[in-house]
Amino acid sequence: MAEKNRTSVGIYGQQYTIIGTDPANHIRYVASLVDEKMREISSRNPGLDTSKVAVLTAINAVHDFIKLKEQYELLEKEYKLKD
Amino acid sequence: MAEKNRTSVGIYGQQYTIIGTDPANHIRYVASLVDEKMREISSRNPGLDTSKVAVLTAINAVHDFIKLKEQYELLEKEYKLKD
Repeated sequence: MAEKNRTSVGIYGQQYTIIGTDPANHIRYVASLVDEKMREISSRNPGLDTSKVAVLTAINAVHDFIKLKEQYELLEKEYKLKD
Repeated sequence: MAEKNRTSVGIYGQQYTIIGTDPANHIRYVASLVDEKMREISSRNPGLDTSKVAVLTAINAVHDFIKLKEQYELLEKEYKLKD
């Protein structure tokens, strides 16, 4: 089993300790993307509280993930057809 | 420009109105995944407040997105090599 690291990151003014097997620089990169997206959503929707900004950020990220998954499956199909 | 829909969804006990061009059933599917992930994170970390649960959910989703993106780029490379 890979060793687990504890990485401390700041997101939207709060500190979080992320525990996982990924390298700290990867965790910090992910955290910086979340922080950036939260600030973007917040600036477009002034007055939203932190938890709503975070939920909308999560919705955005899951939405992007599903779209990319569809593209991945399409590419996989085409890849197999090339055989 | 595609027409924008307003879709109302419930996530972790809160109502959200999502505005976008995606069909309502897609938005509801994304919301259900976010809701499920929040409940899972919350049950593994009792005592976390909603905004922290939501931020950790966003971190998870962005992390999954980046991993999938790396896989996509790898597959794309292999696809091109087949020519």
